[in-house]
Amino acid sequence: MSALTDLLEFQKETEALAAIAGRLEWDQETMMPPGAAEQRGEEQAAIQGILHARRTDPRIADWLSAADGTEMSAPQAAMLRHIRRDYDKTQKVPAKLAAEIARVTSVAQGTWAAARAADDFQAFLPSLERVVALRQEEGQALADGGDPYDALLDNYEAEMTAARLDAMFGEMRPRLTALRERVLEKPEPKGLTGTFRDDKQMELARALAATFGYDFNRGRLDRSVHPFSSGGGSDARITTRTSPDDPFNCLYSTIHEVGHACYEQGIDPEYLFTPLGQGVSMGVHESQSRIYENQIGRSRAFTGWLFDQMTAAFGDIGVADAEGFYHAVNRVQKAFIRTESDELQYNLHIMLRFDLERAMVSGDLKPADLEAAWNDRFKADFGYDVPRASLGCLQDVHWSVGLFGYFPTYSLGNVYAGCLNAAMRKAVPDLDAHLAKGDTAPATTWLHDNVQRHGGLYRPAEVIEKACGTAPTAAPLLDYIEAKFTELYDL
Amino acid sequence: MSALTDLLEFQKETEALAAIAGRLEWDQETMMPPGAAEQRGEEQAAIQGILHARRTDPRIADWLSAADGTEMSAPQAAMLRHIRRDYDKTQKVPAKLAAEIARVTSVAQGTWAAARAADDFQAFLPSLERVVALRQEEGQALADGGDPYDALLDNYEAEMTAARLDAMFGEMRPRLTALRERVLEKPEPKGLTGTFRDDKQMELARALAATFGYDFNRGRLDRSVHPFSSGGGSDARITTRTSPDDPFNCLYSTIHEVGHACYEQGIDPEYLFTPLGQGVSMGVHESQSRIYENQIGRSRAFTGWLFDQMTAAFGDIGVADAEGFYHAVNRVQKAFIRTESDELQYNLHIMLRFDLERAMVSGDLKPADLEAAWNDRFKADFGYDVPRASLGCLQDVHWSVGLFGYFPTYSLGNVYAGCLNAAMRKAVPDLDAHLAKGDTAPATTWLHDNVQRHGGLYRPAEVIEKACGTAPTAAPLLDYIEAKFTELYDL
Repeated sequence: MSALTDLLEFQKETEALAAIAGRLEWDQETMMPPGAAEQRGEEQAAIQGILHARRTDPRIADWLSAADGTEMSAPQAAMLRHIRRDYDKTQKVPAKLAAEIARVTSVAQGTWAAARAADDFQAFLPSLERVVALRQEEGQALADGGDPYDALLDNYEAEMTAARLDAMFGEMRPRLTALRERVLEKPEPKGLTGTFRDDKQMELARALAATFGYDFNRGRLDRSVHPFSSGGGSDARITTRTSPDDPFNCLYSTIHEVGHACYEQGIDPEYLFTPLGQGVSMGVHESQSRIYENQIGRSRAFTGWLFDQMTAAFGDIGVADAEGFYHAVNRVQKAFIRTESDELQYNLHIMLRFDLERAMVSGDLKPADLEAAWNDRFKADFGYDVPRASLGCLQDVHWSVGLFGYFPTYSLGNVYAGCLNAAMRKAVPDLDAHLAKGDTAPATTWLHDNVQRHGGLYRPAEVIEKACGTAPTAAPLLDYIEAKFTELYDL
Repeated sequence: MSALTDLLEFQKETEALAAIAGRLEWDQETMMPPGAAEQRGEEQAAIQGILHARRTDPRIADWLSAADGTEMSAPQAAMLRHIRRDYDKTQKVPAKLAAEIARVTSVAQGTWAAARAADDFQAFLPSLERVVALRQEEGQALADGGDPYDALLDNYEAEMTAARLDAMFGEMRPRLTALRERVLEKPEPKGLTGTFRDDKQMELARALAATFGYDFNRGRLDRSVHPFSSGGGSDARITTRTSPDDPFNCLYSTIHEVGHACYEQGIDPEYLFTPLGQGVSMGVHESQSRIYENQIGRSRAFTGWLFDQMTAAFGDIGVADAEGFYHAVNRVQKAFIRTESDELQYNLHIMLRFDLERAMVSGDLKPADLEAAWNDRFKADFGYDVPRASLGCLQDVHWSVGLFGYFPTYSLGNVYAGCLNAAMRKAVPDLDAHLAKGDTAPATTWLHDNVQRHGGLYRPAEVIEKACGTAPTAAPLLDYIEAKFTELYDL
């Protein structure tokens, strides 16, 4: 038993230190004085150095082999699976390559921001080329002769492959483009107009978070430039932002982050400071944020309740009734920016990125050809031209910071959310009656019991399959989207 | 050169990790969700464990001997002096004792809080006995046959001794008690009355911080139960609190913490993440907070300017003019609580604690006899009886958390502030004309140039001596207090 105990004790300290590093990042985005950035860089480097040394500590290999064959509980076996997996990865990537990636991506992010501001893809190209080359190298190191892109994808979604995503997306794309085309032929619903006071937006955001079961005793809501969630267990914090003309930005960002944070808050406390003590993958994490935001938060039943809260907070909001509000919430527009997209078009944005980044990693697409390839594909899937790079291939930060294999987990999260929604609706047939009163508990309790509490206990696809009774496919999501928008747009 | 370089590189990482631990403490007092306390305990334990391992790393001894005799700059020599000193201390205290002190004091703090709330010294006594015994043991381990109390004092004020403090306090006590007696025979000045809106207090606190040169680009002001300052360099944060009836609580706490934070912000940036990168001792630190708060902030010239700010913020504050306001700011009252004390009586509080804690550490005073000893001494120095333990020996948290040797640094800070004030007034003869316009820059610039920028470069008494031209004594402080209160109370 001793090797197992020692390993888990060592891991507990590593997890606690990683939580501290995460808390520093939260501080950086919410509280840190502007002049402290450089100093903070040194602090982060110090703790990341400690974390790297611990994650590559050769004693882990010794403990793992000594623990092999020991009798252990199912959670302990899952913990060891995670530790072995992570340790194997650190062994495969040379320290020099890891350091070079950290160095290059930290600079590339600044270059990207400047290039986006100047709408100048060429200014970003040298950085992109360098980042792609480094990730190719990392992918090859991790893949052991397999597909480098799969190896990168596995960093965010364990055991998922590009081939499986390809099949899934192949099924989704024609149905979504066809639906998009029919919807955009219809007149555009009216959006909100009115005065949306900043403090009222924050007040309502806070109330909405509580409505979705976010526990403020174990978290807090602040502002940041980009909304995010951070931390876990009894300290899972979220952020949002306000926009004077668009209260949906604040409110639905909040609900989205609440989905992430409730996942973290809902994990079995026994798993705290173990590899099971956080959401199991990016895809499953996104399934929680998306189902809170979309299948629950943008449903007719819930928006009916929310309409009353909106008018109480802001007075006249430019739509006459709950039905008009439901249409405004779910408005599909000709637009370019992924993060502002609706449920229908969002996945088209992701598929475009998935295909392009996969081609860049394989070498089939040269970074120099990215802008043209992006614009062609956008035209094909969305039906209109990208006017400038900041609305096209420069809109997302991801590639500049080296995230390749990350984008598809957003759509995977939507697919999982579609599966969970179908199962949840079956399990709670009168859910809409509750949502219409602003009562989300039957939904969030079902998600807690079937998904959230397990943390990292099961494999990503496995936790969805256990919750739904069948292996995840895109069909429930597509059926849901088609039904919703067909009805909404009277197609 | 390599041993020196390696040692300083190692130290830099340790300092950065210590800064992170400090940031976590700030978070705990200002931002942390209430339900996260237990989880945070694990995180703190993890990073404190890392820090302890680094501070006792045997390579430090090797590097120190290898660097011996190396040619180095004066700052490098000072860095090594700090490192050697700290390392020697860690070697002297057995790990088991250090762990036991951490364990016992963390529990004793809770016991003390409950005992204070119940006004029950007996409930705190067993904890106090345990803490005193442990600190006696630590003091003996550190003292190497010398005075254990001196060894503890040295943790907060390097190279200071109880004998020297005793001589200094022996000079102060009769002059202060005599003055206190004469002042309290006079009619008590009128205090403030009015409506002191919370947001206006915070707004004025913020303006005052800026007035004293606090750089908000490298810091921030938040609320906490007890005001404190935290961090350094480009991230030196402060907190304050508000009280609806007493705006001085918020405003002068803010100025006090600004003094601490400006010291940290003012240290030569070259010293960041070295042992020179923080205030050199508790006494010198307190000299900065005190001179900002008292010799500058409570001066007739500055309060004349502040009176206008107060009436602009709060309207009628119950005193008619700047002179009445000056009297209200400096009101001497019969009271019991150290932290609410005026300039005249404050040091009497400290001397009482110094003598009692010294006697407890030497064994001359049994903890069981503390309450009676406290009450006798209070009667002797203040002239009236302590009605209950919460206003007497249970009022401060210090002993419960194991701080023995810490109290006298408060008075030492006052003594240093007295010396600095005398030198500063000589160097800036027209200072009052500036203060009367709310311009503190000639004072804060002088303090920056002569004290703050040096950080840990010189020994504590040495930095004061360099600034003032003579070794520090109590005389300038006593002269200042006597002149101020004689004039104020028309004695």
